[in-house]
Amino acid sequence: MSSPSRPLTLGVILYPGFELLDVFGPLEMFTAVGRDRLTTHLVAEHAGSVRAGIVPDGPIGPRVTADFGFDDAPELDLLLVPGGIGTFPELGNECLLSFLRDRSRRAQITASVCTGSALLAKAGILDGHRATSNKQFFALAVAQGSAVKWVEAARWVDDGNVVTSSGVSAGMDMALAIIERLFGAETAEAIAVGTEYTRHRDADNDPFVAHLNQLAPMADALAKA
Amino acid sequence: MSSPSRPLTLGVILYPGFELLDVFGPLEMFTAVGRDRLTTHLVAEHAGSVRAGIVPDGPIGPRVTADFGFDDAPELDLLLVPGGIGTFPELGNECLLSFLRDRSRRAQITASVCTGSALLAKAGILDGHRATSNKQFFALAVAQGSAVKWVEAARWVDDGNVVTSSGVSAGMDMALAIIERLFGAETAEAIAVGTEYTRHRDADNDPFVAHLNQLAPMADALAKA
Repeated sequence: MSSPSRPLTLGVILYPGFELLDVFGPLEMFTAVGRDRLTTHLVAEHAGSVRAGIVPDGPIGPRVTADFGFDDAPELDLLLVPGGIGTFPELGNECLLSFLRDRSRRAQITASVCTGSALLAKAGILDGHRATSNKQFFALAVAQGSAVKWVEAARWVDDGNVVTSSGVSAGMDMALAIIERLFGAETAEAIAVGTEYTRHRDADNDPFVAHLNQLAPMADALAKA
Repeated sequence: MSSPSRPLTLGVILYPGFELLDVFGPLEMFTAVGRDRLTTHLVAEHAGSVRAGIVPDGPIGPRVTADFGFDDAPELDLLLVPGGIGTFPELGNECLLSFLRDRSRRAQITASVCTGSALLAKAGILDGHRATSNKQFFALAVAQGSAVKWVEAARWVDDGNVVTSSGVSAGMDMALAIIERLFGAETAEAIAVGTEYTRHRDADNDPFVAHLNQLAPMADALAKA
Protein backbone atom coordinates (compact mmCIF):
# COMPACT_ATOMS: atom_id res chain seq x y z
CA MET A 1 0.00 0.00 0.00
CA SER A 2 1.44 3.37 -0.99
CA SER A 3 1.47 6.44 1.25
CA PRO A 4 2.12 9.12 -1.33
CA SER A 5 3.32 12.51 -0.12
CA ARG A 6 1.07 14.18 -2.70
CA PRO A 7 -2.33 12.90 -3.84
CA LEU A 8 -2.25 10.50 -6.76
CA THR A 9 -3.98 11.76 -9.89
CA LEU A 10 -6.54 9.80 -11.89
CA GLY A 11 -7.41 10.79 -15.43
CA VAL A 12 -10.68 9.45 -16.79
CA ILE A 13 -10.67 9.60 -20.57
CA LEU A 14 -13.88 10.75 -22.23
CA TYR A 15 -14.79 10.48 -25.91
CA PRO A 16 -18.11 10.95 -27.71
CA GLY A 17 -20.30 7.92 -27.10
CA PHE A 18 -18.62 6.73 -23.90
CA GLU A 19 -20.78 4.43 -21.75
CA LEU A 20 -22.18 6.26 -18.72
CA LEU A 21 -21.64 3.62 -16.07
CA ASP A 22 -18.16 2.74 -17.37
CA VAL A 23 -17.15 6.24 -16.27
CA PHE A 24 -19.36 7.05 -13.32
CA GLY A 25 -19.35 3.66 -11.59
CA PRO A 26 -15.57 3.70 -11.08
CA LEU A 27 -15.61 7.48 -10.51
CA GLU A 28 -18.12 7.06 -7.67
CA MET A 29 -15.63 4.72 -6.00
CA PHE A 30 -12.45 6.67 -6.82
CA THR A 31 -13.79 10.06 -5.71
CA ALA A 32 -14.81 8.51 -2.38
CA VAL A 33 -11.12 7.87 -1.58
CA GLY A 34 -10.87 11.56 -0.76
CA ARG A 35 -9.02 14.36 -2.51
CA ASP A 36 -6.17 14.27 -0.02
CA ARG A 37 -5.18 10.88 -1.44
CA LEU A 38 -6.60 10.84 -4.99
CA THR A 39 -7.65 13.69 -7.25
CA THR A 40 -9.66 12.94 -10.36
CA HIS A 41 -9.73 14.71 -13.71
CA LEU A 42 -11.93 14.21 -16.74
CA VAL A 43 -9.80 14.40 -19.88
CA ALA A 44 -10.87 14.40 -23.54
CA GLU A 45 -9.28 15.28 -26.87
CA HIS A 46 -10.59 18.80 -26.32
CA ALA A 47 -11.70 20.28 -23.00
CA GLY A 48 -15.42 20.96 -22.74
CA SER A 49 -18.64 19.12 -23.35
CA VAL A 50 -18.60 15.44 -24.35
CA ARG A 51 -21.77 13.44 -25.02
CA ALA A 52 -22.19 9.97 -23.59
CA GLY A 53 -23.50 7.20 -25.80
CA ILE A 54 -26.75 5.30 -25.96
CA VAL A 55 -26.46 1.91 -27.66
CA PRO A 56 -27.06 1.57 -30.59
CA ASP A 57 -27.76 5.23 -31.42
CA GLY A 58 -24.33 6.70 -30.69
CA PRO A 59 -23.26 9.83 -28.80
CA ILE A 60 -26.70 11.23 -27.95
CA GLY A 61 -26.62 10.78 -24.15
CA PRO A 62 -25.98 13.20 -21.30
CA ARG A 63 -23.31 15.85 -21.74
CA VAL A 64 -20.38 15.82 -19.36
CA THR A 65 -17.62 18.43 -19.17
CA ALA A 66 -13.99 17.39 -19.70
CA ASP A 67 -11.74 19.49 -17.45
CA PHE A 68 -8.72 19.13 -19.70
CA GLY A 69 -7.82 18.43 -23.31
CA PHE A 70 -5.01 16.11 -24.36
CA ASP A 71 -2.76 19.16 -24.84
CA ASP A 72 -3.08 20.51 -21.30
CA ALA A 73 -3.79 17.42 -19.17
CA PRO A 74 -1.73 17.28 -15.97
CA GLU A 75 0.51 14.37 -15.03
CA LEU A 76 -1.69 11.32 -14.47
CA ASP A 77 -0.65 8.49 -12.18
CA LEU A 78 -3.71 6.44 -13.06
CA LEU A 79 -5.56 6.27 -16.37
CA LEU A 80 -9.09 4.95 -16.80
CA VAL A 81 -10.43 4.27 -20.29
CA PRO A 82 -14.17 3.55 -20.61
CA GLY A 83 -15.89 1.63 -23.36
CA GLY A 84 -19.15 2.30 -25.12
CA ILE A 85 -20.72 2.66 -28.54
CA GLY A 86 -18.17 5.41 -29.22
CA THR A 87 -15.30 2.91 -29.03
CA PHE A 88 -15.82 1.92 -32.64
CA PRO A 89 -14.93 5.24 -34.32
CA GLU A 90 -12.20 5.94 -31.74
CA LEU A 91 -10.33 2.79 -32.87
CA GLY A 92 -9.33 4.93 -35.85
CA ASN A 93 -8.50 8.08 -33.86
CA GLU A 94 -4.68 8.22 -33.81
CA CYS A 95 -4.79 11.34 -31.62
CA LEU A 96 -6.51 9.37 -28.84
CA LEU A 97 -4.41 6.25 -29.36
CA SER A 98 -1.12 8.13 -29.19
CA PHE A 99 -2.25 10.06 -26.09
CA LEU A 100 -3.05 6.73 -24.41
CA ARG A 101 0.26 5.21 -25.57
CA ASP A 102 2.28 8.15 -24.29
CA ARG A 103 0.46 8.57 -20.98
CA SER A 104 0.29 4.86 -20.14
CA ARG A 105 4.09 4.70 -20.31
CA ARG A 106 4.26 7.31 -17.55
CA ALA A 107 1.31 6.02 -15.46
CA GLN A 108 1.43 3.60 -12.53
CA ILE A 109 -1.76 1.90 -13.67
CA THR A 110 -3.65 2.01 -16.96
CA ALA A 111 -7.15 0.63 -16.49
CA SER A 112 -10.08 0.05 -18.80
CA VAL A 113 -13.75 -0.87 -18.50
CA CYS A 114 -15.73 -2.79 -21.10
CA THR A 115 -14.66 -2.15 -24.71
CA GLY A 116 -12.08 0.34 -23.41
CA SER A 117 -9.63 -2.58 -23.60
CA ALA A 118 -10.15 -2.64 -27.39
CA LEU A 119 -8.69 0.90 -27.47
CA LEU A 120 -5.78 -0.10 -25.21
CA ALA A 121 -5.12 -3.15 -27.41
CA LYS A 122 -5.24 -1.06 -30.59
CA ALA A 123 -2.72 1.34 -29.05
CA GLY A 124 -0.41 -1.62 -28.32
CA ILE A 125 -0.59 -1.01 -24.56
CA LEU A 126 -1.78 -4.54 -23.80
CA ASP A 127 0.87 -6.38 -25.87
CA GLY A 128 2.28 -9.23 -23.79
CA HIS A 129 -0.29 -8.60 -21.05
CA ARG A 130 -3.23 -10.59 -19.76
CA ALA A 131 -6.49 -8.69 -20.32
CA THR A 132 -10.25 -9.01 -20.59
CA SER A 133 -13.15 -7.05 -22.07
CA ASN A 134 -16.94 -6.78 -22.38
CA LYS A 135 -18.42 -10.25 -22.79
CA GLN A 136 -20.94 -9.58 -25.55
CA PHE A 137 -18.42 -7.66 -27.68
CA PHE A 138 -15.38 -9.75 -26.74
CA ALA A 139 -14.38 -10.46 -30.34
CA LEU A 140 -14.02 -6.74 -31.00
CA ALA A 141 -11.25 -6.43 -28.40
CA VAL A 142 -9.53 -9.62 -29.51
CA ALA A 143 -9.41 -8.31 -33.08
CA GLN A 144 -7.38 -5.28 -31.96
CA GLY A 145 -4.46 -7.11 -30.36
CA SER A 146 -3.01 -10.48 -31.36
CA ALA A 147 -0.12 -10.16 -28.88
CA VAL A 148 -2.52 -9.85 -25.94
CA LYS A 149 -3.22 -12.84 -23.66
CA TRP A 150 -7.01 -12.47 -23.72
CA VAL A 151 -8.83 -13.96 -20.74
CA GLU A 152 -12.44 -14.80 -21.51
CA ALA A 153 -13.68 -15.69 -18.03
CA ALA A 154 -12.76 -12.81 -15.73
CA ARG A 155 -14.66 -10.10 -13.89
CA TRP A 156 -11.42 -8.14 -14.17
CA VAL A 157 -7.75 -8.95 -14.85
CA ASP A 158 -5.05 -7.32 -12.73
CA ASP A 159 -1.78 -7.62 -14.62
CA GLY A 160 0.21 -5.12 -12.61
CA ASN A 161 0.41 -1.84 -14.47
CA VAL A 162 -2.52 -2.72 -16.73
CA VAL A 163 -5.87 -3.66 -15.22
CA THR A 164 -8.82 -4.38 -17.49
CA SER A 165 -12.40 -5.15 -16.57
CA SER A 166 -15.30 -6.96 -18.12
CA GLY A 167 -18.41 -5.05 -19.24
CA VAL A 168 -19.93 -1.89 -17.72
CA SER A 169 -20.76 -2.83 -14.09
CA ALA A 170 -17.50 -4.76 -13.68
CA GLY A 171 -15.69 -1.43 -13.67
CA MET A 172 -16.92 -0.80 -10.13
CA ASP A 173 -15.42 -4.07 -8.87
CA MET A 174 -12.15 -3.30 -10.65
CA ALA A 175 -12.09 0.20 -9.18
CA LEU A 176 -12.51 -1.20 -5.67
CA ALA A 177 -9.73 -3.73 -6.33
CA ILE A 178 -7.40 -0.93 -7.48
CA ILE A 179 -8.38 1.16 -4.44
CA GLU A 180 -7.63 -1.85 -2.23
CA ARG A 181 -4.18 -2.24 -3.80
CA LEU A 182 -3.29 1.44 -3.54
CA PHE A 183 -5.02 2.53 -0.34
CA GLY A 184 -5.75 -0.68 1.58
CA ALA A 185 -8.60 -3.11 2.15
CA GLU A 186 -10.20 -1.00 4.84
CA THR A 187 -10.63 1.98 2.53
CA ALA A 188 -12.08 -0.18 -0.25
CA GLU A 189 -14.50 -1.84 2.14
CA ALA A 190 -15.64 1.46 3.65
CA ILE A 191 -16.37 2.78 0.16
CA ALA A 192 -18.34 -0.34 -0.83
CA VAL A 193 -20.40 -0.07 2.37
CA GLY A 194 -20.87 3.68 1.97
CA THR A 195 -22.21 3.21 -1.55
CA GLU A 196 -24.22 0.12 -0.48
CA TYR A 197 -22.48 -1.82 -3.24
CA THR A 198 -22.28 -5.62 -3.12
CA ARG A 199 -18.81 -6.23 -4.52
CA HIS A 200 -17.69 -9.03 -6.76
CA ARG A 201 -14.53 -9.91 -4.84
CA ASP A 202 -13.19 -12.71 -7.06
CA ALA A 203 -11.58 -11.41 -10.24
CA ASP A 204 -11.78 -14.88 -11.81
CA ASN A 205 -15.48 -15.46 -11.17
CA ASP A 206 -17.31 -14.15 -14.24
CA PRO A 207 -21.10 -14.59 -14.11
CA PHE A 208 -21.52 -13.27 -17.66
CA VAL A 209 -19.02 -15.35 -19.65
CA ALA A 210 -21.95 -17.45 -20.92
CA HIS A 211 -22.91 -14.46 -23.06
CA LEU A 212 -19.56 -14.35 -24.85
CA ASN A 213 -19.67 -12.80 -28.32
CA GLN A 214 -23.47 -12.73 -28.51
CA LEU A 215 -23.27 -9.37 -30.22
CA ALA A 216 -20.30 -10.25 -32.45
CA PRO A 217 -22.22 -9.57 -35.70
CA MET A 218 -23.23 -6.14 -34.41
CA ALA A 219 -19.66 -5.41 -33.30
CA ASP A 220 -18.41 -6.47 -36.71
CA ALA A 221 -20.84 -4.19 -38.51
CA LEU A 222 -20.03 -1.23 -36.22
CA ALA A 223 -16.28 -1.72 -36.53
CA LYS A 224 -16.55 -1.59 -40.32
CA ALA A 225 -18.98 1.36 -40.34
CA MET B 1 -46.90 -3.85 -18.62
CA SER B 2 -47.79 -0.72 -20.59
CA SER B 3 -47.49 -0.40 -24.34
CA PRO B 4 -47.51 3.35 -24.69
CA SER B 5 -48.26 4.87 -28.10
CA ARG B 6 -45.58 7.50 -27.48
CA PRO B 7 -42.34 7.00 -25.54
CA LEU B 8 -42.60 7.61 -21.83
CA THR B 9 -40.46 10.49 -20.55
CA LEU B 10 -38.11 10.29 -17.58
CA GLY B 11 -36.84 13.43 -15.88
CA VAL B 12 -33.74 13.02 -13.75
CA ILE B 13 -33.48 15.94 -11.33
CA LEU B 14 -30.00 17.41 -10.85
CA TYR B 15 -28.88 19.81 -8.14
CA PRO B 16 -25.41 20.94 -7.04
CA GLY B 17 -23.78 18.16 -5.05
CA PHE B 18 -25.86 15.27 -6.42
CA GLU B 19 -24.26 11.84 -5.99
CA LEU B 20 -22.80 10.57 -9.28
CA LEU B 21 -23.94 6.96 -9.13
CA ASP B 22 -27.41 7.92 -7.85
CA VAL B 23 -27.94 9.53 -11.25
CA PHE B 24 -25.84 7.53 -13.67
CA GLY B 25 -26.51 4.04 -12.32
CA PRO B 26 -30.27 4.27 -12.95
CA LEU B 27 -29.67 6.31 -16.12
CA GLU B 28 -27.46 3.53 -17.53
CA MET B 29 -30.40 1.15 -17.10
CA PHE B 30 -33.16 3.53 -18.21
CA THR B 31 -31.38 4.72 -21.38
CA ALA B 32 -30.86 1.07 -22.37
CA VAL B 33 -34.65 0.65 -22.70
CA GLY B 34 -34.36 2.50 -26.00
CA ARG B 35 -35.62 5.91 -27.04
CA ASP B 36 -38.62 4.45 -28.85
CA ARG B 37 -40.02 3.46 -25.45
CA LEU B 38 -38.39 5.83 -22.96
CA THR B 39 -36.73 9.20 -23.48
CA THR B 40 -34.65 10.70 -20.69
CA HIS B 41 -34.07 14.33 -19.78
CA LEU B 42 -31.76 15.90 -17.23
CA VAL B 43 -33.61 18.70 -15.43
CA ALA B 44 -32.30 21.23 -12.92
CA GLU B 45 -33.48 24.52 -11.45
CA HIS B 46 -31.68 26.20 -14.34
CA ALA B 47 -30.58 24.54 -17.57
CA GLY B 48 -26.82 24.20 -17.98
CA SER B 49 -23.89 22.94 -15.98
CA VAL B 50 -24.45 21.28 -12.58
CA ARG B 51 -21.62 19.98 -10.42
CA ALA B 52 -21.85 16.58 -8.78
CA GLY B 53 -20.82 16.23 -5.16
CA ILE B 54 -17.94 14.58 -3.42
CA VAL B 55 -18.62 13.68 0.22
CA PRO B 56 -17.88 15.57 2.48
CA ASP B 57 -16.55 18.43 0.37
CA GLY B 58 -19.74 19.38 -1.47
CA PRO B 59 -20.44 20.20 -5.13
CA ILE B 60 -16.90 19.93 -6.49
CA GLY B 61 -17.32 16.84 -8.68
CA PRO B 62 -17.77 16.38 -12.44
CA ARG B 63 -19.93 18.87 -14.30
CA VAL B 64 -23.00 17.54 -16.07
CA THR B 65 -25.31 19.55 -18.33
CA ALA B 66 -29.02 19.85 -17.47
CA ASP B 67 -31.06 19.91 -20.68
CA PHE B 68 -33.94 21.81 -19.12
CA GLY B 69 -34.66 24.18 -16.27
CA PHE B 70 -37.74 23.90 -14.05
CA ASP B 71 -39.42 26.59 -16.15
CA ASP B 72 -39.14 24.80 -19.50
CA ALA B 73 -39.08 21.08 -18.58
CA PRO B 74 -41.36 18.95 -20.76
CA GLU B 75 -44.11 16.71 -19.38
CA LEU B 76 -42.47 13.97 -17.33
CA ASP B 77 -44.10 10.58 -16.84
CA LEU B 78 -41.36 9.42 -14.49
CA LEU B 79 -39.31 11.47 -12.04
CA LEU B 80 -36.02 10.36 -10.51
CA VAL B 81 -34.56 12.31 -7.60
CA PRO B 82 -30.99 11.47 -6.58
CA GLY B 83 -29.39 11.98 -3.20
CA GLY B 84 -25.96 13.21 -2.30
CA ILE B 85 -24.11 15.73 -0.17
CA GLY B 86 -26.15 18.43 -1.92
CA THR B 87 -29.38 17.12 -0.42
CA PHE B 88 -28.77 19.08 2.78
CA PRO B 89 -28.99 22.64 1.37
CA GLU B 90 -31.75 21.60 -1.07
CA LEU B 91 -34.01 20.70 1.87
CA GLY B 92 -34.43 24.45 2.20
CA ASN B 93 -34.90 25.15 -1.52
CA GLU B 94 -38.64 25.81 -1.91
CA CYS B 95 -38.19 26.20 -5.69
CA LEU B 96 -37.01 22.58 -5.96
CA LEU B 97 -39.54 21.27 -3.46
CA SER B 98 -42.49 22.90 -5.20
CA PHE B 99 -41.29 21.67 -8.61
CA LEU B 100 -41.15 18.13 -7.21
CA ARG B 101 -44.56 18.53 -5.54
CA ASP B 102 -46.18 19.83 -8.73
CA ARG B 103 -44.56 17.33 -11.10
CA SER B 104 -45.03 14.26 -8.91
CA ARG B 105 -48.80 14.91 -8.95
CA ARG B 106 -48.75 14.57 -12.74
CA ALA B 107 -46.19 11.72 -12.97
CA GLN B 108 -46.89 7.99 -13.13
CA ILE B 109 -43.96 7.23 -10.87
CA THR B 110 -41.84 9.43 -8.63
CA ALA B 111 -38.65 7.62 -7.67
CA SER B 112 -35.69 8.50 -5.48
CA VAL B 113 -32.25 7.11 -4.73
CA CYS B 114 -30.42 7.46 -1.44
CA THR B 115 -31.11 10.74 0.42
CA GLY B 116 -33.35 11.79 -2.47
CA SER B 117 -36.21 10.43 -0.37
CA ALA B 118 -35.45 13.11 2.25
CA LEU B 119 -36.30 15.70 -0.43
CA LEU B 120 -39.50 13.84 -1.40
CA ALA B 121 -40.47 13.60 2.27
CA LYS B 122 -39.79 17.29 2.87
CA ALA B 123 -42.00 18.11 -0.14
CA GLY B 124 -44.80 16.00 1.40
CA ILE B 125 -44.80 13.60 -1.54
CA LEU B 126 -44.23 10.54 0.67
CA ASP B 127 -46.99 11.30 3.22
CA GLY B 128 -48.97 8.11 3.83
CA HIS B 129 -46.55 6.09 1.72
CA ARG B 130 -44.06 3.36 2.56
CA ALA B 131 -40.51 4.50 1.75
CA THR B 132 -36.83 3.90 2.44
CA SER B 133 -33.56 5.81 2.18
CA ASN B 134 -29.77 5.62 2.46
CA LYS B 135 -28.84 3.45 5.40
CA GLN B 136 -26.05 5.52 6.94
CA PHE B 137 -28.08 8.76 6.75
CA PHE B 138 -31.49 7.18 7.45
CA ALA B 139 -32.32 9.54 10.33
CA LEU B 140 -32.03 12.52 7.97
CA ALA B 141 -34.88 11.22 5.79
CA VAL B 142 -37.01 10.24 8.80
CA ALA B 143 -36.67 13.76 10.20
CA GLN B 144 -38.28 15.23 7.05
CA GLY B 145 -41.56 13.30 7.13
CA SER B 146 -43.43 12.08 10.21
CA ALA B 147 -46.41 10.91 8.10
CA VAL B 148 -44.21 8.54 6.08
CA LYS B 149 -44.14 4.80 6.83
CA TRP B 150 -40.36 4.49 6.85
CA VAL B 151 -39.01 1.00 6.12
CA GLU B 152 -35.53 0.47 7.50
CA ALA B 153 -34.71 -2.90 5.93
CA ALA B 154 -35.32 -2.57 2.20
CA ARG B 155 -33.15 -2.48 -0.90
CA TRP B 156 -36.01 -0.48 -2.40
CA VAL B 157 -39.69 0.08 -1.61
CA ASP B 158 -42.24 -0.01 -4.43
CA ASP B 159 -45.38 1.72 -3.18
CA GLY B 160 -47.08 2.17 -6.52
CA ASN B 161 -46.63 5.72 -7.72
CA VAL B 162 -43.72 6.35 -5.36
CA VAL B 163 -40.68 4.10 -5.42
CA THR B 164 -37.73 4.85 -3.16
CA SER B 165 -34.39 3.09 -2.95
CA SER B 166 -31.72 2.61 -0.37
CA GLY B 167 -28.26 4.18 -0.83
CA VAL B 168 -26.38 4.86 -4.05
CA SER B 169 -25.97 1.43 -5.72
CA ALA B 170 -29.52 0.39 -4.80
CA GLY B 171 -30.76 2.84 -7.41
CA MET B 172 -29.70 0.42 -10.15
CA ASP B 173 -31.79 -2.39 -8.66
CA MET B 174 -34.76 -0.06 -8.27
CA ALA B 175 -34.38 1.14 -11.87
CA LEU B 176 -34.44 -2.45 -13.14
CA ALA B 177 -37.54 -3.15 -11.02
CA ILE B 178 -39.31 -0.11 -12.50
CA ILE B 179 -38.22 -1.17 -15.99
CA GLU B 180 -39.59 -4.64 -15.30
CA ARG B 181 -42.93 -3.18 -14.20
CA LEU B 182 -43.25 -0.83 -17.18
CA PHE B 183 -41.59 -2.79 -19.99
CA GLY B 184 -41.53 -6.42 -18.85
CA ALA B 185 -39.15 -8.87 -17.21
CA GLU B 186 -37.43 -9.75 -20.47
CA THR B 187 -36.37 -6.15 -21.10
CA ALA B 188 -35.08 -5.73 -17.54
CA GLU B 189 -33.13 -8.98 -17.73
CA ALA B 190 -31.59 -8.11 -21.10
CA ILE B 191 -30.41 -4.78 -19.69
CA ALA B 192 -28.91 -6.42 -16.58
CA VAL B 193 -27.05 -8.93 -18.77
CA GLY B 194 -25.95 -6.27 -21.26
CA THR B 195 -24.47 -4.18 -18.46
CA GLU B 196 -23.08 -7.30 -16.73
CA TYR B 197 -24.89 -6.23 -13.59
CA THR B 198 -25.70 -8.77 -10.86
CA ARG B 199 -29.12 -7.58 -9.72
CA HIS B 200 -30.51 -7.55 -6.24
CA ARG B 201 -33.89 -9.06 -7.07
CA ASP B 202 -35.49 -9.01 -3.63
CA ALA B 203 -36.65 -5.54 -2.58
CA ASP B 204 -36.89 -6.67 1.05
CA ASN B 205 -33.39 -8.12 1.32
CA ASP B 206 -31.15 -5.29 2.52
CA PRO B 207 -27.50 -6.26 3.04
CA PHE B 208 -26.62 -2.84 4.45
CA VAL B 209 -29.27 -2.32 7.14
CA ALA B 210 -26.63 -3.20 9.75
CA HIS B 211 -25.06 0.19 9.03
CA LEU B 212 -28.23 2.12 9.91
CA ASN B 213 -27.61 5.69 11.09
CA GLN B 214 -23.85 5.27 11.44
CA LEU B 215 -23.39 8.76 10.08
CA ALA B 216 -26.30 10.31 11.99
CA PRO B 217 -24.08 12.86 13.79
CA MET B 218 -22.63 13.99 10.45
CA ALA B 219 -26.12 14.20 8.93
CA ASP B 220 -27.27 16.24 11.89
CA ALA B 221 -24.39 18.67 11.57
CA LEU B 222 -24.87 19.02 7.80
CA ALA B 223 -28.63 19.51 8.10
CA LYS B 224 -28.07 22.37 10.55
CA ALA B 225 -25.22 23.94 8.53
